Order: sequence, then structure tokens, then C-alpha cells
Amino acid sequence: MNVDGKEMRPIWPDEDMKTVKVIDQRLLPHEMVIADLKSLDDIIVAIKEMYVRGAPLIGATAGYGVYLIVISAPDPSIPDDYLKRECERLKAARPTAVNLAWAVDRMLPKLLAARTPAEKIELARNEARAIADLEAENCRQIGEHGLPLIRDISEKKGGQTVNLLTHCNAGWLACVEWGTATAPMYAAHAAGIDIHVWVDETRPLNQGARLTAWELGKAGIRHTVITDNAGGHLMQHGQVDMVITGTDRTTCTGDVANKIGTYLKALAARDNNIPFYVALPSTTFDWTLRDGVAQIPIEERDPDEIRYIQGYENGTVKSVLVPPAESPAGNYAFDVTPARLVTGFITERGVCAATEADIRRLFPERR
Amino acid sequence: MNVDGKEMRPIWPDEDMKTVKVIDQRLLPHEMVIADLKSLDDIIVAIKEMYVRGAPLIGATAGYGVYLIVISAPDPSIPDDYLKRECERLKAARPTAVNLAWAVDRMLPKLLAARTPAEKIELARNEARAIADLEAENCRQIGEHGLPLIRDISEKKGGQTVNLLTHCNAGWLACVEWGTATAPMYAAHAAGIDIHVWVDETRPLNQGARLTAWELGKAGIRHTVITDNAGGHLMQHGQVDMVITGTDRTTCTGDVANKIGTYLKALAARDNNIPFYVALPSTTFDWTLRDGVAQIPIEERDPDEIRYIQGYENGTVKSVLVPPAESPAGNYAFDVTPARLVTGFITERGVCAATEADIRRLFPERR
Repeated sequence: MNVDGKEMRPIWPDEDMKTVKVIDQRLLPHEMVIADLKSLDDIIVAIKEMYVRGAPLIGATAGYGVYLIVISAPDPSIPDDYLKRECERLKAARPTAVNLAWAVDRMLPKLLAARTPAEKIELARNEARAIADLEAENCRQIGEHGLPLIRDISEKKGGQTVNLLTHCNAGWLACVEWGTATAPMYAAHAAGIDIHVWVDETRPLNQGARLTAWELGKAGIRHTVITDNAGGHLMQHGQVDMVITGTDRTTCTGDVANKIGTYLKALAARDNNIPFYVALPSTTFDWTLRDGVAQIPIEERDPDEIRYIQGYENGTVKSVLVPPAESPAGNYAFDVTPARLVTGFITERGVCAATEADIRRLFPERR
Repeated sequence: MNVDGKEMRPIWPDEDMKTVKVIDQRLLPHEMVIADLKSLDDIIVAIKEMYVRGAPLIGATAGYGVYLIVISAPDPSIPDDYLKRECERLKAARPTAVNLAWAVDRMLPKLLAARTPAEKIELARNEARAIADLEAENCRQIGEHGLPLIRDISEKKGGQTVNLLTHCNAGWLACVEWGTATAPMYAAHAAGIDIHVWVDETRPLNQGARLTAWELGKAGIRHTVITDNAGGHLMQHGQVDMVITGTDRTTCTGDVANKIGTYLKALAARDNNIPFYVALPSTTFDWTLRDGVAQIPIEERDPDEIRYIQGYENGTVKSVLVPPAESPAGNYAFDVTPARLVTGFITERGVCAATEADIRRLFPERR
């Protein structure tokens, strides 16, 4: 995507093909730092510490992680048990991210089937690139399928501003290109539709305030940062026409795991008859789960992510302590929005209702 | 209330009776600063800039504000038109706070009826003190009436921990003594009931993380700070037994204006069959309004309250910028929770349902 005149992705291999470069998203929007990842351990740190985040980007990062596993094998024969062990270690980096497992599970069997070390290396390189390109293409198509939903609202409003609300960052920073939740926004903006986006700041890590606002600003899309608390009030007063979020994992029955607080927005949207859409590539569906609230494990992260807030002061990024030093905090990273609150899914194949039947209509090949 | 062995209120007159002392709550929990208010302008700054906040404390501050108006009259006869004009100016300091108008409207007619300047001064002093004492006593009674609700849950759970959730700070810092939402918690703790409080951090000004956590910590009550986003998830998983919040203004039909985000918690409580109570002194009822969402004006505050977050770093309180410098923010300070989502009100006269009939049953003298 375009950043001050330069085309960028949030992840790319360096020319030497020994280093994976990522935007260290922890310092945005105040500092643009590119991190060099040279080993599986670096990849795991980048995922766990959230240099990179977002379902599709974690998938792409996992792809390059497997590539680094392959080229870093201490035994030049790249033995199967080494590959399996290291791939397991990679999959454990973030439990909620279904794309992480998806990318690893796509690559590992092919690598085990490849005959020579040279073949394995070439395969891993091509697959990692293919996964990144697939995520980008999926997002482009999500934008194409989401655009008519926004255009309809615009037409019903006689061309008046369409107010969208999004939670967290499901933008290109999370997704290689276009983003998931943002893809229809970028498509609508490109089509000349007048849109304005309410950006939930998205505590604790403020990915909305830091990343979505930065992305939309770079793209020249009108937006306003609000607290996570504000969406219900805006919906009560007709200030939101549509909600679009991403998801980290969605069951085949339509339950949506996404950044903590998504469920509250879905409740408010339902209470005010506002369409609530979730944009996702089909790689984010978990075809094995049927009850999101009961079955999707919710990651608990370091309480200091809540206690300390990072921002910019006096020329540097620093962290300040908000609550009393002795007060404990609980950091639940995701919640699950039941399918009954979701108006529909915007996928790379089109839009469907949040029901198993309609999801499987779009993806009949899935068992 | 007890702070490190010393009995404190958040507001009190200095011995000279020319200065009103308040805890400057903006710097808590990291610094305890006492501000000296010597004029109506000081009082207005203290209310607008939120040195003091919370419905009952704003009422008490307004009482002392009227007292300062009276003793600061440039004309020693303390003319009626001066009193009326200055009282109007005081009432305009925060539009949502019904207690502000309530306190002024209680005092002004009595002052206009008083015959001599000396009478006016004595009356204003006594009334200001009476308002503060009334707010404190109301809160003590709210605690008494809320206690059985918590005891019932404790008994149903066989003495296991009762998990309460609260939003913002409706504690003694907001209320002279005991607090409104916290009064039943303090009463339950004093009665030996095992409670734990989920404290919403309450963006943008983090009154939960900064003030409620500080209060509960000083009182030795077990608590955990969470993001405003987390409550829905906790309710889905049986981790919340009851929600108690305060309110800045409640209509006689039971619609509750409170800190932005309260509505989202009420929706989640309803979706999970969790009792949602609002604790308030009857001074916070607005007997003139019938439709909270349509009629209660919602204050929009400085967007920098969202863009900059204040905390402690390296020995001082500082503010850090979170979103991109060029991204605008919208700061809606309150929202309205419709009566249909409220289980009941805990008042100084007892508990009632969120219906006009039941509210008027408790307060039959109100027209």
C-alpha cells in the first residue's frame, strides 16, 4: 500500500533471502521501524510481542517462519523430525490465530514430501510468497464484495456521508494488502463514495488509534478516533450506518472471535438495527469448531499491557503507568461474538449470512 | 473515608472559611494534590477541568461555590441580581450534572429570601455543609440498601466470591463519603462478604483505573482493572454476578445517563441475564425528563482527552500522544442506558425497579 509515495507491505523477504523484514507495528504511528527476522525464534518473538498482528499477516509471517526453519536447519539434510518439531513450536506462538496453524499445516506436508534439501528450500520460499500473495488477493476480493454494501447505503442516503465503525486494526498492516475490514472502505473511497470511519481506539494496545487511524490518514480517508466506550452512543443517535470488523477465528457456525470488545459493539449494533459485518478470508474460518463461546480459547496476555499505555512524548515513544502500582489487571485479548449478532460475512468469494448453511454454500468444498 | 490512617473527604472548607479545599483528582493515584478554591472562577475551573467529578460531589462543590459567591460579593449588600447572575454562571459549568443545578436551586431562593448580608453568609455556609452531609448520608443509606442484594448472591453461591463489575468511579471520591456504586461494596466488605470487583478502566479519563482502583485498594477490597472492552467476555463466562454503576442524571422514567460506555455494559448484562443496578441518591433523578436518549444533552469534551493519555513515568505524571498527531478524535462524555436494560435502582430510600411507577412509589412527594 502507499505510504508517503512508497509502495509497502508489512512483511517482505530481504534480497539476500536470509532475512525477513517486517514493520515493527508496536511503534506506529510515531516511529516507522523495520525489524530484521533471521530465525524461528525471531519470528516467534515478532508474533508473540506483536511486531506483527492480524490473522492474515500472522499467516504470512508463519509462512516465512517455516521458510526460515527450512533454511536454518542445523543438519543440512533438513530432517523430518526437526521440521515437525520446529513447526509445532511456531504454531504455539499465538493460540487464537487460526491462520498461523493454517499456514504451517499447508506447508509442512509438502515439505515432508519434497525429496531433496534444495527442493525443500525452493518449495518453502515459493510457498511463503504464495501465502502472502494469496492473503493480499483475498483482501482485494473482500473489498470488491464489500463495496456494494457501502454503495447501497450511500444511495439510500442520497449520497450523504456513509458512517462506518470499525474496531481494532483489520487493515493492510494486519493483512499484507488492503486489509479485511478496511478493504471495502478502501474500495468505496476509490469509487468516490463519501465515507467517514469511526475508529475505536481498541484498548489495551490501541491498534485502532495507532494503526487504523494511521492507515486511513495515509489513504486520505476521513476518520475520527473514539473511545471503545463511544460506539453505542453514536449508534443510538444515527451516527453509524454500518459496522465492519475483522476476525481472528470464526467457527463454521458463524461465531466470531475478534479483538476484545467486538461483542459489545455487535450488541449495540443489534439494539439499534445497524448492520454488523465481519470481513474475512476463508483461511480464518475454523471448520472444526461449532460453538465459539465454549470452544475458542481466549488468550490472556501480560497485565502490564493494560497498566502501561504507550505513546509519544517529547520526541520519544514511552510508556506511562495509569492505575495504582499495586492494583492488579486482567488482560483478556479476544472475545467471541455469537453468530446471532452478525449480519453477514464478507469473504473473498462474496457475502454470506452468519449461518453454517450459508457459509458452506460459499465454501462447499469444506468438510 | 480512611486514606492511610487519615479520615478524608474529597471536599472541605478550610478553617478560615474563605477557602474550599478539594482533592485534585486529576493526579490520582500517582500524586495527592489538594487544591485551594477561593472564588467562583476557581470552583468553575475545578468542575470543568474535573479536579472534582461525580454527581454528588459536584452537588457539594456547587454548594460551596454558592457560598464563595456570597462571601465574594463586590457589593457588601450582596444584591439579588449579582447572586442570580453568578448562580447561573455556576450552573453552566457542566450541563449533564443534574446535582449542580439541584444544589444551586436549593440555595438560591433561600438566599434571596434572607434579609441581611450576615444572614445570607451564615445561611450559605450552613447550606453548603448540609448539602455535603446530605450527600454523605444518602450514600451511607445506599450502601445499607444495596448490601442485601450482594448478600443474596453470596448465599446463593454458598459463600463463594461475589464478582461485581463497575464502570467509572462512583466511589467516595465522587460522593463525599461511601460513594454510590461502591457503597454496597464497602458495606458488603465490612459485613465480611467475600467480594471481588472488576474495575473498568473507563476511557478516556480512566477514572476506573485511576480512582476506583485506588479507593478499593485503600479499603483492602480485592479488585482487578480491566479494559472497558472486557466486561462482555467476562459476563459470557460467568465471571460477573452483578453490575453496579452510578449515574449523572436519571429520568423519572428510569433512563440512565452515565459515563460513556455504561450502555454497552448494560447490553451485555442483559444478554447474559446478569443483574444491572444503578446506585443513586434521589438528587440525581431529573423529574422533568421522560426520554433520556432524546432529551439528555451529552457533553462533548476536548478531543485531546482521548488523544493524550496521562500516567506516571520516571517519577512524574505526564501525558503521551497515542494516535497520529493529525488524526481527529471525538470525545462524547456520557451515554444513556434505556430503562429497559436496568434491573433496578439502589437509592437512599431503598431499591426500586427502573419504572416510573416504582420510582414514584419510593418518592411519592415528587411531581
